Amino acid sequence: MKLPFGGDYNPEQWPEAVWDDDHRLFDSARIDTLTVGVFTWALTQSSLEAYDFSTLDRIVGRAAAEGRQVCLATGTGAMPPWLVREFPEVTRVDFEGREKRYGGRHNHCPSSPVFRRLSARVAGRIAERYAGNPAVIAWHVNNEYGGSCYCDLCAAAFRDWLRKRYDDLESLNAAWNTTFWSHTFTGWEQIEPPSALTEHWKGPDFTAFQGITLDYHRFMSDALLSGYLAEKEAIRRFSAKPVTTNFMGLFRPIDYHRWAEHLDFVSWDNYPPDDDPATAARMALAHDLMRGLKGGAPFWLMEQTPSTTACRDVNPLKRPGVMRLWSWQAVAHGADAVLFFQMRASRGACEKYHGAVIGHAGRDDTRVFREVAALGAELERLGEATLGARTPARVALLFDWDSWWALEISDGPSRLVKYLDVVLAHYRALWRMGADVDVVAVTADLSGYDVVVAPALHMVKGDLAGRLEQVAARGGSVVTTFLSGRVDVDDNAFLMDVPGPLGPLMGVRVDEWDSRERGVVNPVRLADGTLVDSSLLFELVIPTTAEPVGRYENDFYAGTPAVTRNTFGEGHGWYVGAGLEQAGVDWVMRQVLDRHGLALPYPEHVEATLRVAPDGSRLRFLLNHGAEPVEVAVEAGLDLLGGQELQQGRVLLEPYGVKVIRLRG
Amino acid sequence: MKLPFGGDYNPEQWPEAVWDDDHRLFDSARIDTLTVGVFTWALTQSSLEAYDFSTLDRIVGRAAAEGRQVCLATGTGAMPPWLVREFPEVTRVDFEGREKRYGGRHNHCPSSPVFRRLSARVAGRIAERYAGNPAVIAWHVNNEYGGSCYCDLCAAAFRDWLRKRYDDLESLNAAWNTTFWSHTFTGWEQIEPPSALTEHWKGPDFTAFQGITLDYHRFMSDALLSGYLAEKEAIRRFSAKPVTTNFMGLFRPIDYHRWAEHLDFVSWDNYPPDDDPATAARMALAHDLMRGLKGGAPFWLMEQTPSTTACRDVNPLKRPGVMRLWSWQAVAHGADAVLFFQMRASRGACEKYHGAVIGHAGRDDTRVFREVAALGAELERLGEATLGARTPARVALLFDWDSWWALEISDGPSRLVKYLDVVLAHYRALWRMGADVDVVAVTADLSGYDVVVAPALHMVKGDLAGRLEQVAARGGSVVTTFLSGRVDVDDNAFLMDVPGPLGPLMGVRVDEWDSRERGVVNPVRLADGTLVDSSLLFELVIPTTAEPVGRYENDFYAGTPAVTRNTFGEGHGWYVGAGLEQAGVDWVMRQVLDRHGLALPYPEHVEATLRVAPDGSRLRFLLNHGAEPVEVAVEAGLDLLGGQELQQGRVLLEPYGVKVIRLRG
Amino acid sequence: MKLPFGGDYNPEQWPEAVWDDDHRLFDSARIDTLTVGVFTWALTQSSLEAYDFSTLDRIVGRAAAEGRQVCLATGTGAMPPWLVREFPEVTRVDFEGREKRYGGRHNHCPSSPVFRRLSARVAGRIAERYAGNPAVIAWHVNNEYGGSCYCDLCAAAFRDWLRKRYDDLESLNAAWNTTFWSHTFTGWEQIEPPSALTEHWKGPDFTAFQGITLDYHRFMSDALLSGYLAEKEAIRRFSAKPVTTNFMGLFRPIDYHRWAEHLDFVSWDNYPPDDDPATAARMALAHDLMRGLKGGAPFWLMEQTPSTTACRDVNPLKRPGVMRLWSWQAVAHGADAVLFFQMRASRGACEKYHGAVIGHAGRDDTRVFREVAALGAELERLGEATLGARTPARVALLFDWDSWWALEISDGPSRLVKYLDVVLAHYRALWRMGADVDVVAVTADLSGYDVVVAPALHMVKGDLAGRLEQVAARGGSVVTTFLSGRVDVDDNAFLMDVPGPLGPLMGVRVDEWDSRERGVVNPVRLADGTLVDSSLLFELVIPTTAEPVGRYENDFYAGTPAVTRNTFGEGHGWYVGAGLEQAGVDWVMRQVLDRHGLALPYPEHVEATLRVAPDGSRLRFLLNHGAEPVEVAVEAGLDLLGGQELQQGRVLLEPYGVKVIRLRG
Repeated sequence: MKLPFGGDYNPEQWPEAVWDDDHRLFDSARIDTLTVGVFTWALTQSSLEAYDFSTLDRIVGRAAAEGRQVCLATGTGAMPPWLVREFPEVTRVDFEGREKRYGGRHNHCPSSPVFRRLSARVAGRIAERYAGNPAVIAWHVNNEYGGSCYCDLCAAAFRDWLRKRYDDLESLNAAWNTTFWSHTFTGWEQIEPPSALTEHWKGPDFTAFQGITLDYHRFMSDALLSGYLAEKEAIRRFSAKPVTTNFMGLFRPIDYHRWAEHLDFVSWDNYPPDDDPATAARMALAHDLMRGLKGGAPFWLMEQTPSTTACRDVNPLKRPGVMRLWSWQAVAHGADAVLFFQMRASRGACEKYHGAVIGHAGRDDTRVFREVAALGAELERLGEATLGARTPARVALLFDWDSWWALEISDGPSRLVKYLDVVLAHYRALWRMGADVDVVAVTADLSGYDVVVAPALHMVKGDLAGRLEQVAARGGSVVTTFLSGRVDVDDNAFLMDVPGPLGPLMGVRVDEWDSRERGVVNPVRLADGTLVDSSLLFELVIPTTAEPVGRYENDFYAGTPAVTRNTFGEGHGWYVGAGLEQAGVDWVMRQVLDRHGLALPYPEHVEATLRVAPDGSRLRFLLNHGAEPVEVAVEAGLDLLGGQELQQGRVLLEPYGVKVIRLRG
Repeated sequence: MKLPFGGDYNPEQWPEAVWDDDHRLFDSARIDTLTVGVFTWALTQSSLEAYDFSTLDRIVGRAAAEGRQVCLATGTGAMPPWLVREFPEVTRVDFEGREKRYGGRHNHCPSSPVFRRLSARVAGRIAERYAGNPAVIAWHVNNEYGGSCYCDLCAAAFRDWLRKRYDDLESLNAAWNTTFWSHTFTGWEQIEPPSALTEHWKGPDFTAFQGITLDYHRFMSDALLSGYLAEKEAIRRFSAKPVTTNFMGLFRPIDYHRWAEHLDFVSWDNYPPDDDPATAARMALAHDLMRGLKGGAPFWLMEQTPSTTACRDVNPLKRPGVMRLWSWQAVAHGADAVLFFQMRASRGACEKYHGAVIGHAGRDDTRVFREVAALGAELERLGEATLGARTPARVALLFDWDSWWALEISDGPSRLVKYLDVVLAHYRALWRMGADVDVVAVTADLSGYDVVVAPALHMVKGDLAGRLEQVAARGGSVVTTFLSGRVDVDDNAFLMDVPGPLGPLMGVRVDEWDSRERGVVNPVRLADGTLVDSSLLFELVIPTTAEPVGRYENDFYAGTPAVTRNTFGEGHGWYVGAGLEQAGVDWVMRQVLDRHGLALPYPEHVEATLRVAPDGSRLRFLLNHGAEPVEVAVEAGLDLLGGQELQQGRVLLEPYGVKVIRLRG
Repeated sequence: MKLPFGGDYNPEQWPEAVWDDDHRLFDSARIDTLTVGVFTWALTQSSLEAYDFSTLDRIVGRAAAEGRQVCLATGTGAMPPWLVREFPEVTRVDFEGREKRYGGRHNHCPSSPVFRRLSARVAGRIAERYAGNPAVIAWHVNNEYGGSCYCDLCAAAFRDWLRKRYDDLESLNAAWNTTFWSHTFTGWEQIEPPSALTEHWKGPDFTAFQGITLDYHRFMSDALLSGYLAEKEAIRRFSAKPVTTNFMGLFRPIDYHRWAEHLDFVSWDNYPPDDDPATAARMALAHDLMRGLKGGAPFWLMEQTPSTTACRDVNPLKRPGVMRLWSWQAVAHGADAVLFFQMRASRGACEKYHGAVIGHAGRDDTRVFREVAALGAELERLGEATLGARTPARVALLFDWDSWWALEISDGPSRLVKYLDVVLAHYRALWRMGADVDVVAVTADLSGYDVVVAPALHMVKGDLAGRLEQVAARGGSVVTTFLSGRVDVDDNAFLMDVPGPLGPLMGVRVDEWDSRERGVVNPVRLADGTLVDSSLLFELVIPTTAEPVGRYENDFYAGTPAVTRNTFGEGHGWYVGAGLEQAGVDWVMRQVLDRHGLALPYPEHVEATLRVAPDGSRLRFLLNHGAEPVEVAVEAGLDLLGGQELQQGRVLLEPYGVKVIRLRG
């Protein structure tokens, strides 16, 4: 038993002579797991009734014969040409109203009965054929679900979805506040998908009616899910092995919280922006979000590039050590597999310059290959130590696709405030202080956490406000920010003081907010005298029971509270009313963590996490994201990668260095 | 009798219990006028034959019962869903050729017979029902007309419009200069609306044939007008009360000069860019333009936000005092009503964060509510003092939609020169010097003015050149600028020296002009040695009878005149050939005003206007747009807001402060 | 015999009285050649069967009577309205899938049989009618071919083109690497034009499959060519006079190398960006490319503006002397005609502000007219001295449309690397050092050159690598750069070390490359200690047999070679692996030229070329592109423009000054 290592492998693009080279190189890099068949629909089905699995047989057979595990895909991530030609309904109509024809990938209409039937059929055939092959350890449905369709089939399916949600038009009209601008619907057939042809006056985020656009986001996420479920069900008829599809981390179009229960394990593809100083924290946030989808269960890192991407305007090279570091970061946050896209670089088309373990020249003496092989050896040495481990977090960060959508499709107060920016600033503060964080849905059980952070929680649904009050009541700390508590589940404003149902916990009310262009700064003086900048959004916070913790320095609202803390039961409600710069967010989060003894003293660029293995052993991960060596404090334990026992004290982390320590006792 | 105060009120969005709160709050803020029913088509007509006025009855009835006046809308500003479903022809085809489906507002095809018939029908029903209600003081047709349609109905209507304008294709071919690029039309049906599918090679301003695009602007303005007229006519059958529609000030798509005669009074919505230092002058220009539409008659400020907008990327808050200041500015320029959008913030959809007198929490102790109520009290104290007053301007600024369109759809000399920028720079210079300005059409009677300013008068039509010569001949001053006098009514170049028919008055000719990127500056040395920058456009002015007043300092045309003054009869023709910075425009305008004794000595940020009430009393308005207090000279008179008599001397204007003084004698 | 001087003349836009003025002015400016009829289709054919050449008769007749030569156009550069109305198939469908209707120009579907038939028919009629007129010296087909169409006719024609190229789908699938993303085509009818509706995920350069997009570029270039050929063939039935069409220099959409053999002489339109310091070199490159199309034969400068363009956002004025200078530059690089667009400015439509020899006022005392007339006189004095002269270049620069397309539609490594930027940087270095350069296709005979420069030669086709090796083997120098030698004729990566087949000649291999945002700089230390910046792309060059000439200074690859030189036979292969700034490219090219004694010692801004006349006389052109006078070394000879004999020594070039010297002996 060890952590699966390998990735996407497309030998169908090559003559079989090349396969020999592949497996030889896989051996030398300790690659034991291959994701096979992601884009093989045209290969396995050349017309409506012609299936041919001979090549796939040879691929899977060869992998099995070489002792490798296979994550076998249904191959429906891209449609074959004949399918589109024969059934034009399977393509999408885009936001601009353009009917797509054949081309690209990720392009199926999620409401097409033909696509549903035929994608499930091929998935079922594959499951039937390979279910008994012991090399197959998991099923990979489709690929990176996403995008939207606005065709007539989707319009009809949307109306059905709305009928189920609202029962009658009266409820729908109320939810969407249709009296505004004379939109009262008197027949279901009057409802059109919200697009450039209908409600949107600019791009996808500029709608006349937030309600319909929000519901279309929800519908589209569900519609894509039902395609996944159709394939999964077809597989289940033949196999009980785990089924997954590869998610994309911080991906707005799909509400992964609605999907997660239908995946046997979560897997995701990590393609961060390479050159951003916040990338390390951003990846950590994504990992924690993915881990949180199934209550903390380990996930697979399904894809990452060993070197560069290709699809961006500029595609920098991962520096030496970075691929290893980021692989270990995934494990540190809960990954039980480390896989790459791709094993061998394709010759032609749009990913020929995407990084690969094996390049066009087939060499094993490139830097990339050597680093992959070194990581393979390292993982082999590690064995099963990390498998199944869980993260014992005492901090929860609420992540909510509905708030993400609602905030970013809103007209006013500010298009410059982005949900992820606010979330990431708060997560990053926690991450810098070494706190393990569960990133969870707003419906998650919060009873086990000392700290709950809810950045930009625009929408407050169900009993959430009460559950947050309970966290504080029993001594915990709850943090929320500007633009939280504004709307209900239908995106209608709460008819009460801002922040709506969060008001009692926060002990504040907000009547006014200023929004300004990027670059307009209002300094905020914090309780200990620290001065930090704020920008973009400035809520004029009126404490009711809270005490001011920071005040604006400028403008007509100089002296007005910008940050407050409210004592609620045994605990606190913190309200951050201004768009603080990172240093300000750090300051607030440090006050919060310190109260609960959760801030760890690590130097800058050092990331620390803890995982607890099924046998109870505690694993400390230390990662240096900096280009300079750094000394850090360590607890006593066994350095699993270095192999030696460490005493409590200090240890040197190389640039991009990693330590995994099984703590003593 | 007092100035109406209040604004848009949409109680149909709320349960009636809320209406009680509304009227209680209206009382406390002295709100006496409500604009009702702007988006009620779906409310009053739920299908082709089903009209139901019961809710509107209760709204109007309640307002009347509370003693409030009603500006009653026809409700056609947005179409109900059933209308679009039943008659798809009522939606638009956009510039890109996309056929719109149901959604949004301001989206009706202006050439659709169905829309014309049904919008007029509902307008007539409303007029019939409420004409006798004494609370109703005006009719509000549709809402903020604008936009364009390119459907086949519009294509047919455009051809009819062209037949009326040109009689035969020979005239049309000559007007559009179709021989260029082989466009000679031999049948009316060959003519297509100019769009992304036809003549436009980039966006709406980039056309291969200026002639057809210019005529489409004119046609579309007329087509929208005919929809207004259909509603007005339907109202007139039942009511003689005044009819208006809300204009949008400096709004390019519609030639308000062609519309004005059909409004019983002008009303407009003022949503300026909040953070621009030129905003105060820009609003003043818009007010003066609106006042000029009907020969100086007072207008209504139909909408303004009490606090923030919502539809912009960034929506700043109006600073304390600014809402009051801008309200008084409207009155200073001729407004006889001060109304807001909106009375109560809607719960959902795209304007839920738009500022409102009453917010979601329904409070009367917010800053916004308090400021509204204070203004209400102030206006009540003022009573009828300003009603019906007129502005005794001795300066006219020519404003011409044809020139605006022609200049901005022109290929060459420079896309960076914007009509409004040039107009605003000249208006702003006059405004800074306290000159009252009538902003008038090129057809206006100019015989009463000392100074006529015609910035960027690209197109010269009819007998205008002669009338401008008369202004100068009798001792007046005429000012025009670069890019004036270039084309005739068909946008064909004058076959004579630039500036065409303005040449004799200006005493110059221009053979060459240079245009350069923003940031390329050529200093101009003015007659008294002052040095100012010029940029964007540089005409090489050759005086024939004029004398140079400013010369370029740089480039191969250093020493060439950039600004000239020509003695013509008893007066002067000034030609500004370069894109002068504001200080340069100020310098020129000061020379001009000084000659006529029209420049007043007010400090920066202080705006001064004069109105003469029907009883002959003269009202001096003084407005401080600055954030600092400032001392200004005042004539002797009665401070109408403060209540005390002032002697000639100096008075302090608070930041954003206002004085209205009834001058003695 | 003298060089033709004149340009586009559209008297059909004017009453005949104006023609008298025109010819009077032409005489005074020595204008002897008129391009007539470019947009006359609507004039000569007013419906399917109605041809009328009476106006064209008068135009051509008058020109002939005045002793002027005529370049007679077929008039098909813009379609008449009736054609589009009667045959909608003749318009295009654009990249976004929008079906165009009537409007604009350059808008015919190149695959439309109707367009093909009718355009050839009118071309034939014109040829038949005017073939015998001795004033007609050349035929001008259509105008500035370009653009793309994506209609169903083009889809069908594309499939035919593909059948011819690939014979069977198996070959096509291999060429496009369709196994990637499940694109295996099983029927020709499944293939769609690559557009926003199919393979493109962003604009025209962002495709999922480079193979199909590359082939569509090739197909579209060929499709437009076949329209040209149809017209040419129709002309040939009646006339043996030379046929051309006006090219556009560095124009990406059309592979002029595929067209050149079908033109009897090359002609092109020169509208450079006016304000760019690299403009002079850029024009020189374009001239040399145009000259290279037909093996060094002289070409016509078919269009240039005498003063300004109109279609740009900003249209600067040509400074005094610049029009003359740029005219002589064309001659210096091989032009045997100097023509303008346009003789008289049109009154209306989008080119009314485009510069013209005669402006709207019809004056002959403008600066522009005087400069044109002076040039006319100068050319008359020059007589036949330059006609038919050839450029004796010892340096070849490879220019390859396939590489241009392939590089710029590639996903990765960097969208910021532009083919022309790399080509121009290398050309500019050669140009600054006074080297005459032939810009040639990759299929050109390279045996006569000392130096061959192949910048960004992304695609290497046929036997090119071998022919480059021969250049070096016999003592020549070959230079190539980053991103060369990457793909084969189908845009599939070479399955070998980078730079593919160029590897042996370059003596390097490249496993990794870094790409970074603009502004990220890595200095490169060159062999003599010079330090230059590099940016955008950084290949980590591993010498196999080459010697390092420059090394990176920064990042983890500090010390790694960035520039290398390989001894190959008697000569050298130079590899420039980094995106060097101009100074770095200059440094490399100077080493190369110095070895062959080809760098001439001219000061900055001075351009020098040599042409050899048919009688063997050598003509030295010296052009000062600077605004300051400069002294340059001259050989002994006759100053053809000044008329005096010069001794070897130094001579002063005025700002924008020109010398043409017939060298002694």
